[in-house]
Order: sequence, then structure tokens, then C-alpha cells
Amino acid sequence: MLNFESDYTTGAHPEILKRLMETNMESQTGYGFDDYCISAAEKIKKECADEKAQVEFLTGGTQTNQVVIATMTMNGDGIIAAQTGHINGHEAGAIETVGRKVFGLEHKNGKISASQVRAFTDNYYADANHEHMVRPAMVYISHPTEYGTLYTLDELEDLSAVCREKNLKLFLDGARLGYGLMSLQTDVTIKDIARLTDVFYIGGTKVGALCGEAVVFTHNNKPERFLARKKQLGALLAKGRLLGVQFDTLFTDGLYYRIAKNAIDRAEELKTLLKNKGYTFFMDSPTNQQFVAVDNKKYEELKKKVRVGFWETIDENHTAIRFATSWSTTKEDIEALEAIL
Amino acid sequence: MLNFESDYTTGAHPEILKRLMETNMESQTGYGFDDYCISAAEKIKKECADEKAQVEFLTGGTQTNQVVIATMTMNGDGIIAAQTGHINGHEAGAIETVGRKVFGLEHKNGKISASQVRAFTDNYYADANHEHMVRPAMVYISHPTEYGTLYTLDELEDLSAVCREKNLKLFLDGARLGYGLMSLQTDVTIKDIARLTDVFYIGGTKVGALCGEAVVFTHNNKPERFLARKKQLGALLAKGRLLGVQFDTLFTDGLYYRIAKNAIDRAEELKTLLKNKGYTFFMDSPTNQQFVAVDNKKYEELKKKVRVGFWETIDENHTAIRFATSWSTTKEDIEALEAIL
Amino acid sequence: MLNFESDYTTGAHPEILKRLMETNMESQTGYGFDDYCISAAEKIKKECADEKAQVEFLTGGTQTNQVVIATMTMNGDGIIAAQTGHINGHEAGAIETVGRKVFGLEHKNGKISASQVRAFTDNYYADANHEHMVRPAMVYISHPTEYGTLYTLDELEDLSAVCREKNLKLFLDGARLGYGLMSLQTDVTIKDIARLTDVFYIGGTKVGALCGEAVVFTHNNKPERFLARKKQLGALLAKGRLLGVQFDTLFTDGLYYRIAKNAIDRAEELKTLLKNKGYTFFMDSPTNQQFVAVDNKKYEELKKKVRVGFWETIDENHTAIRFATSWSTTKEDIEALEAIL
Amino acid sequence: MLNFESDYTTGAHPEILKRLMETNMESQTGYGFDDYCISAAEKIKKECADEKAQVEFLTGGTQTNQVVIATMTMNGDGIIAAQTGHINGHEAGAIETVGRKVFGLEHKNGKISASQVRAFTDNYYADANHEHMVRPAMVYISHPTEYGTLYTLDELEDLSAVCREKNLKLFLDGARLGYGLMSLQTDVTIKDIARLTDVFYIGGTKVGALCGEAVVFTHNNKPERFLARKKQLGALLAKGRLLGVQFDTLFTDGLYYRIAKNAIDRAEELKTLLKNKGYTFFMDSPTNQQFVAVDNKKYEELKKKVRVGFWETIDENHTAIRFATSWSTTKEDIEALEAIL
Repeated sequence: MLNFESDYTTGAHPEILKRLMETNMESQTGYGFDDYCISAAEKIKKECADEKAQVEFLTGGTQTNQVVIATMTMNGDGIIAAQTGHINGHEAGAIETVGRKVFGLEHKNGKISASQVRAFTDNYYADANHEHMVRPAMVYISHPTEYGTLYTLDELEDLSAVCREKNLKLFLDGARLGYGLMSLQTDVTIKDIARLTDVFYIGGTKVGALCGEAVVFTHNNKPERFLARKKQLGALLAKGRLLGVQFDTLFTDGLYYRIAKNAIDRAEELKTLLKNKGYTFFMDSPTNQQFVAVDNKKYEELKKKVRVGFWETIDENHTAIRFATSWSTTKEDIEALEAIL
Repeated sequence: MLNFESDYTTGAHPEILKRLMETNMESQTGYGFDDYCISAAEKIKKECADEKAQVEFLTGGTQTNQVVIATMTMNGDGIIAAQTGHINGHEAGAIETVGRKVFGLEHKNGKISASQVRAFTDNYYADANHEHMVRPAMVYISHPTEYGTLYTLDELEDLSAVCREKNLKLFLDGARLGYGLMSLQTDVTIKDIARLTDVFYIGGTKVGALCGEAVVFTHNNKPERFLARKKQLGALLAKGRLLGVQFDTLFTDGLYYRIAKNAIDRAEELKTLLKNKGYTFFMDSPTNQQFVAVDNKKYEELKKKVRVGFWETIDENHTAIRFATSWSTTKEDIEALEAIL
Repeated sequence: MLNFESDYTTGAHPEILKRLMETNMESQTGYGFDDYCISAAEKIKKECADEKAQVEFLTGGTQTNQVVIATMTMNGDGIIAAQTGHINGHEAGAIETVGRKVFGLEHKNGKISASQVRAFTDNYYADANHEHMVRPAMVYISHPTEYGTLYTLDELEDLSAVCREKNLKLFLDGARLGYGLMSLQTDVTIKDIARLTDVFYIGGTKVGALCGEAVVFTHNNKPERFLARKKQLGALLAKGRLLGVQFDTLFTDGLYYRIAKNAIDRAEELKTLLKNKGYTFFMDSPTNQQFVAVDNKKYEELKKKVRVGFWETIDENHTAIRFATSWSTTKEDIEALEAIL
Repeated sequence: MLNFESDYTTGAHPEILKRLMETNMESQTGYGFDDYCISAAEKIKKECADEKAQVEFLTGGTQTNQVVIATMTMNGDGIIAAQTGHINGHEAGAIETVGRKVFGLEHKNGKISASQVRAFTDNYYADANHEHMVRPAMVYISHPTEYGTLYTLDELEDLSAVCREKNLKLFLDGARLGYGLMSLQTDVTIKDIARLTDVFYIGGTKVGALCGEAVVFTHNNKPERFLARKKQLGALLAKGRLLGVQFDTLFTDGLYYRIAKNAIDRAEELKTLLKNKGYTFFMDSPTNQQFVAVDNKKYEELKKKVRVGFWETIDENHTAIRFATSWSTTKEDIEALEAIL
């Protein structure tokens, strides 16, 4: 069945599988010390224009959030995030499992602002009893957000400035980073992100890899004994080459950007299509996820012909649903969808 | 200086010290197996009219919240509480340290309602992705709340019913329970609490003891291997007699109630006094904590003559402050305060 | 350079890569609900002849040990293992990170016995203060062990019996299970293991997969809410198909056994070779890892021509080294080694 | 019944109760900021002759070990201790609960040596795979040990030197420190301990207090945000005065030493008595705990007349038992015991 349910329903970009095949019989060192992890890290550092950056590869998004937060903050610390942030609502307690609290702030289209962060932190320090309270130690944002929206460069600059002022780490979850970078409506580059955050990651799982996220500790921020701590959290892959080869391929000849661009192009077509068909947008998204509000009858009809994501119940008779394009969505898929909508 | 800052500024009720003195040279078994822990537990069970209840003694409030939550829920579980609940804001991450998430719901005078709990839980189970989310496993309320307010019997019955229906444990934090039970405006008894909750505790630290909270696991709810788990969390006192003697004394001849009653009587006098002096109440509290809004000049003046609790900043020019009475507040203290206000 | 350093230096068996390629563009559900995970689980259940078994896929060995132990025992519990057990010495604290203690018993060629387990457990329960001690709750064994040795069926039967008697879970780490099952000197089948343990896993990473371990919860033992708990520990893979396809392939037409057999055949040739060349065996191993003691000069010479594993320092002048064969070791590799030794 | 079972069977030294009584109605700040905590800390710093020392008060021994280890080492770190160390065998997993591993080294009368520590640590760093292993980060010793034995000054100097060389924290558990300092056979002073360790504690619970341990972070070693982290672990007492008054009293006019001296004097009398009666010593102890081996018939007889501590089963017919004296043991107790032995 036609499938627009999520951006991780197919396998890997063929170029990646090809490279896995080609390098398969090579004998490589384990645990991330293989030639491909090293090469991929170098390529990513170049992309970031941050010579002091350190790149580490992990397997999935929740794992990455857990490992980054556990190693860059102290037990009992608090992480400021949007109420809708992935770590707040959709990681089954992975952050609390490592002893951190998530402060879920009111969001605006999935985003939080520098002034919210400032107010929250000021409020903490102004409280005479703040030593008895959870200390805000990090700001977690995602880009694109859960709603597909993007921070502007100005917004990121402001968040970065307030974080430095208030001694907060700035962590950007880029599970769908490619789609953000290739959006037609963004002024943010990967170099900006590397410059403005303390740590971020480049999502592979949702952008063409079988699995894998590349964590970039900017400005020499990698926590000490990172390998051991990764292992303590069950996150050290024996055949690190699996991650290395994938990211090395993704960052050769701009493959990562090209395949993300495909998703954006298809999403733009999809957007036009939805508009033309008279659908009501639940949210204006500049990336690969498109949200529309449909009445439940329509929803039931659609479900028979195409897989889409349930997003939320709007009211008794309406539901918000999500269409996601990806590196593997084709023009034919869009045409097939047109016939259905 | 005159001190209305909190209800734990003095030592223990003299009767307690007397009993500690009298029993001091007795040779007693450690770890809660002494005669006094056993006797106190029996007396408390009788008060609760719950033959299957099990009583355990711990040292302080945050410790008790941590131990109860860690032993009655699973790692990664979520605890529903008021946004203002002590576990949400004032325990420095003790709940997250044991791997649980606190869901801070909007409060009404420090309280949450059965319908909020129902809506929150229904929402969780209705979400198609709820297996990826933190499961609500417990409802935490305090009685009196952080604002000195009280649940009515009807409200407690409703909370209890929704908890049973939704498979949630109901935990009542009674750090100031005595003041709640002796309020002139309550219809809730300790027997009601024992009947309606899965676990609650009777606060000693804030009601006349040097330290100590008596946890009541109602209806045979005590978690297996509780002694070992208490010890794992650093909460097992070697000379358990220190807790046993105090609670045995507090529950002999109704001492716990009598000394709580004193705080209530003084609070009523204080309330009248504040009204007569024209103070604006920030919150209507039926227990031993009284909150008024003052302008900052007045606040500065007051601070020179009496210690009061800072509660929160209302606006640039106004502050909410707290006056707390306790078992040790005297009529003379109230008269002295009258001269100052 | 010729490489006998470990059994995970090459990629995946070509048959696996082929299947990944063939299934790549299929649209599949995430998180282990894809067709391949379902199919692989069925095939493994059949191998085990345990209809009530439940099969779950995880990414790596340490992660699997952590997830299994965290979900099948309680916080503060103790795990009985050989002093040399992987969880005791080589997981950087992953077991302690989830709050469990490892009891490292004296080993005999990497193994522990039922009588040791009995004595240890009896000793615990005999101690009048055992409630203040860590409770033994699980026995962890590996098969093959860290030294490549194997339990006999009788030994496993005895371990299983003592575990049932003493209320201990029996967990078998099968990171190299294939090599154990195909050893020429074993009387243990996978059906025996399924019958005798409470949980075990079938290693993929070291037996031909890119990554992945198949956990078998025997006799309906899967812990409740396993998906959420896996996620809490950062161990839930979005594209579960990556694991599903690999194990489905490994358990089609006996591929898992066939490729393990290759490692055993090459190891037997290697053994003969080492004997003929006059090497002293450090340990008699019936599986794919062969350990010899060499003087340090020889070691230095060898290192120039072939990569081998450092095992341990025997004395000032001698070192124990490991040669590992795998599914990808060829007769040509053995011949090339012959020229070097 | 006559009771030599442990050193914490009676309440507090009367001088302490008297001071609690005298200060009871004073209004004091909570959480360790009261006058008595401040004064006690000053007195202890003077005793230690360490101006940069920081003193913190906690409630009990296991709690103290947990808080110190959790705040002075990193998650996943390892603590070197004697196999018989309290943290290894008798804290129900409190150390693992905060994610640390205990390395239990072979002991000699409850002690470990600098050369053992050196060998263990060298072995760790020599292992090519040590990043995959638990890092030794701290040495934990107790003084007196579980067997009542004492380190000599030379032994402590050596341990301290190896710890500094190997980047290990040295932590001395002084749950019974008073009895060690007042032993007739020691050359170690509290100043030596302050000079040589990174952190140690002065036990109150077992030396005359109702509860309480005074942690001394030597040389400005107190971990940052200690108050919050104490609270996260449920270890912050609201009425800190309870601890402050007790330690202030114990460190006024040498009360701590005087009452410890009583225990030592009685232990010496007890020792003579046991020798004269022909008892076989299981262990030669220079402090307040005396261990003898008795045949089981004798043990049964004794138990009818005096409470003693079970120590361990020696063989089928013999048991090691412990007699403990304390600050409250009288000459009359010894005489009464003489009639029984």
C-alpha cells in the first residue's frame, strides 16, 4: 500500500547498501576505530567548519538523546525543552532513567524561545530555595521540530546567547536535520548549528540510513571517557563500521543533502496537492512532514488506500494526520496519492 | 527574633524528648525492630482502622517520597502530581534520580482533581504510540497541599475511584497531615485516608518530632523486600528506636492531634489578626500556613522584626509571604506579632 | 594484513547483505513489528521447540546483557557470574549502571558450577543479616565462555535445577552461540538451552551479522511492558527490519549453523597447525577461539605479520594470545598463517 | 538481658540528650544552616587541623557511603575495597544503586594494602581493553575495619601515596572511628587521617549519638552543589540541628574521645576476661569488638544469658561470635559477664 506514514519505512539509500557491499570483506577494527568512522568524522567536521569538533556515531535517536544528556549534564539536572519535545513525551522515560528531569515549556509550533529560557532560568535563580530545586543545565531543541517547523538563524543566535549567559548547554536534536537544512524556507546552515550549539546530531535513521546518528560535540566539548560511558549505556556498537560506512557515504559528494532535497521537493508537491484539493493545514511546515486536519469519515476512507500517520485528536469529529515524504518518495508516489486524495 | 518562617524551626515536643530520655539506656534491637517501632506501628494501625496496614518509619519527607515511589512503581513510570507538588518542584531531582518522571498538572490552590487524572490517563491510553510514552502509574497528592489547602472527602473519594479504575496507585504525602486533620474546615479523617489511598504518610518532622515520617502501606500494600530496598536507598536508620519512640509518643493519648490543634488555634488567631490589620490574603488556607500579599516596602519592614517565609514574587512591587504556626507557637507569639504587623 | 584478532572484523555474511538489498525498498512498520522480525521470531521459536518462547531483537551484546538483566531482576539484585564473565569485567559498568551487583565467582576455564551457585546462595540465606545484603537473583553464564569453553549438558541441567530450587533466573549469554552449537565436542543443542534457561540470546554480531542479538525469553518469560523498557534503555531500533532481515536470513536453511561450522572447521585446522608447530596451548578450547602461550620475542615477530588478540600477560617473558576464526575465515587464511607461524 | 551484641543498642550519651533538651525551644534555620552544625563543623575542622576541610552531616553509615561515593566519583566508576568491606557485603546494593561497582579485594584481617591497590590499578591500565572495563576511581577503607582491626600510620601513608599516584580518591569509613582513635595500639590520629585521605567520616551512630555521621571533605574536596545532591539522594535532614547539636556536644571538651575510651577500657577488661576463661580468639582486635570462636553447645548456653553477635560459621561445630563494648558499657556489665562466661 502507498505509504506516507513516516520517513523511516524503507531501508537505506541504495548508495549506502552498495558501499556496505563493497567494503564488506575488509578487515576493520571495532568500536568506532575503523577507517570509515574516522573518514566520516573528518568529512563531517569539514562540513561544520569546526576543527575542534569531535564526532561520535550512535545507533538511534532516543539512545543518542540519552547518551548526550547523561554525559553532558549531572545527575539530577534539568533539561529545558518544548512540552512537545521528543525527550519529554516520546522516549518512554529514557531521560529520567538516567536521572534527569525534563522541563516541558509551552511551545509555539514545536519551538521554544530565548526569552522563555531566560525567564525560566531567572525564575530558578531568583528563588531563595533554588538549591532544593532541579537546576536547569541544558536546553534541548529539535530542528526540524516534532511539527516539522524550523528555527530561524536569529532565533538560534538568541538561544545560543542566552545559554552561554546562563551556563546552559545547548543541544540540538537533528534526527531530521537534512530535511531542515534543505528546506526552501530556512536561513540556517550546518555551520551555523556547529557554531551556536554545544552538541547536536545529524540524523541518519530518518534520512536514508539503516540506522545511525552522528553526534557532533562542537568546540572540543566531548565528555571525558566517552567510549566507556557510551558502553555503560549499552550504546557502543562492536562493528562500528556499520555506522562509519553509512555516514561516510552520506557525506561523500553531498549525498545527505541530495536525498534530503528529494524529500523536500516531494513535500512541496504534496503541499500544492493538498492545497488544491482543499485540505486544511493543521500546521504550516516547511519540511518533509505535512499536517492536515480531516474529518473522521475522510480519515477512515483515506486509511483504506494510503498509510498516513495519526497525529492527534482535534475534536470528536476531526483528526490531525501527518504525511511524511523521505529520500525514497517518488514523483509516482505523489501522483498515486493525487488519485486518492 | 520572632519566627513564623516555617513549622520546623524548633526542636521536638517536650513530651517526646522526655520519652527519649526515659528509654535512653534500654537496650533495643536496631533497624526498626525495637519495641517502640512495633508499638507505634500498632497504634497507628488502630488509628487507621486498617488491620492489614503496614507501617514503616523513615527520616524525612523527600526521602519518604523517594522510597515510596521507587518501591511502588517501576523504573520509567510517571507520577501524576500538581505542578506545585513537592516532588515536582522542591526535591532537587530525587524522583528522577530513581528513574521516574513527574507529570506536573495545572493545580487549583495546590490541588488536582479526579477529572484531570482521568483526562490525562485517557489521553495516554488513547494515543496509538503510548508504548513509547511514560506510563502514568501513580497519583501523588499532598494533604495539606503546599498552599495549606485540603481535599474534601468527596474529592478524595473521586480521586481514589479514578485511581482504582485506571490502575494508578494513590499516594498521599502527609508531611503536615496533623494540621490537615485538625483543621476546622475538613471532613476528612485519617481513617478515610487509610481507606482511600494505597499508601500515605504521617509527617513527624513538621508536626513536633525531631525527624521522622510514618509511612502507612494500606491494605497490605507493602512492597516485597522493603527493608533491603529502604537500605539500598540509604534510608534505613540503625537506631530505629529514635523514630519508634517519637511516633509512639505522638500516638499516645492523642498527642499528635493535640499539638496539631495548637497550630490550628494559633493560625485562626493569626488569620483574624491579619484580617483586622487589613492584609490581603494571597490564598485562603484552612491550616497552619497563612499566605498574604504585601508590598515590598512593608515586606522589608517586617523582615526586620519577624522571620517570615518568602513565597513568591507577585509583581515588581508585591510579594507573597507565608506565616506558619506550629505545635510550638504560643499565644504570646501571636500577641508579639500583633504589635509588629 | 592477515587477521585472526577477533570474530567481528569483517562485515556480514553475503547472504545477509543480499537479503537487505532485496528487501530494501519494501515499506515496513518500525520498532520490530516488520514482517522480518515476525518471521525470524517464528523460525527461532521452532528451532527452540518452545511454543511459549518470545523472541526480541537487540543491537549488541552489552546492550542485551543490560536490558535482560534490568528487566528480569529488581534494582539492587545480584547476578552470579564467573569472575571472568563479560558482565563482570568487560562492560564498563553497564550492569551497575542499572543498579545491579555482579558476584564474580572463581571460574574453571571460564565456567562456574551448580555446586558453587548452591553454596553461594545457601551462604546468603544462612546469614542472619541477609536482608542487609545483595540478594542473588540470577545466574549469568556464557556459552561458549570468554575462554571458548563449553558447558556440558549435565552441567547445564545441574545449573538449571539449582536455579529453580533457589529461585534464581538462569541467563545464558550466547554472543558466540553458533560456535558453541557447532563444536565437535558438545552435547548441548539449542533446544536444551531453551528448555533449561529462563532467557538466553543468539549472537549475531560475532556470527555473521552486521549487528544484532536475538533474545529468547523461554517459557513465556518476557517481562511486562518490554517495548517501553527497551526504549527507556535506549535499545529500541526504529528500523527493526535491519535486525529482522538478518536473523530471518540466518535462520533460513540453517545458514547460522553453516557459517558457524566454517569457523569450527577452520579452528580445528588451526589447532592442528599450532600443535604441529609446537605451540603450547594456554587453554583447551573446543570452539573458534584458540589460546596459546608464546614468549614475547615470538609475539613481537608474529605481530608484524598477523593480527592476533592480546589475551593476558602470563609472566615477564610470556604472553597468552588468541587466534579467532569466524564465518569468514578461509582455508587460504589458514595456509597463509601456516607460512608465518 | 545483658547485651554485648553491638555498639548501637542503647540511645545517646546523656550529655547529648541534655543539650538537645537545652536547645530544644530555640528557633533555628533548617537544612544544616543552624548554629550547631556551623559550630560543630568548626570544632571538627580544628581537630583535623585542616583549614580547608568542609564538614557535612548525614544521618547514617550506608547513606553516607552512598552519598560520598555518588558525589566523588562518576557513574560506572569502580571502588576498590576489601572483600569484607561494608559497602561490598552489607549495604544491600546501595552502591550499585547509584551505578558504581565495588571491587572486593582479598583482605587480611579486614584490611587491604597499598601494594594490592597498585597491582590492581596497574593491571587495569596495562590491559589494552581497559576503556571497556570499569575504571578504579576510589579506594574505600574502614578504620576500624569490620573486624575491629586498624591501619598503621605507615599503611595509611602508603595507601595515600598510591592513591595520589594513581589518581584514586581515598575514602575512609569511620563509622567506629572513635574506637580506632582511642585504641591502645594505634599510631594514627584524626589529623593524620585528615591529611592522608580525600574524604572520611566520623561515626556518631556507633559512638554515642542517636544518629549521625560527620563527613569531612579534606583539602577543599567538597563536591559542587553538594546540598542539592544530598537532597537528590534523600539525605538532607530538615532539622539539621539534630545532627549539629549532637556533634557539637561530642566535640566539646573531648566527649567523643572520652566515651570511646570507655569502650576501649571495657574491651581490654573483656579481653583479659576471655583470655583467663580460656576462650580462643578468632581474630586479634585492638578496638571495641572482640571475636572468639566457640563450640556450638557453648554458644547455645551463652545465648540464654547474654546477647552476643553472630559473626560467622567456622565449621559444623564452631561459630565465631562477637562481643562489642560501647560508650555505655559499664564495669558492672563486665562483672556480670564474668559470672556467665
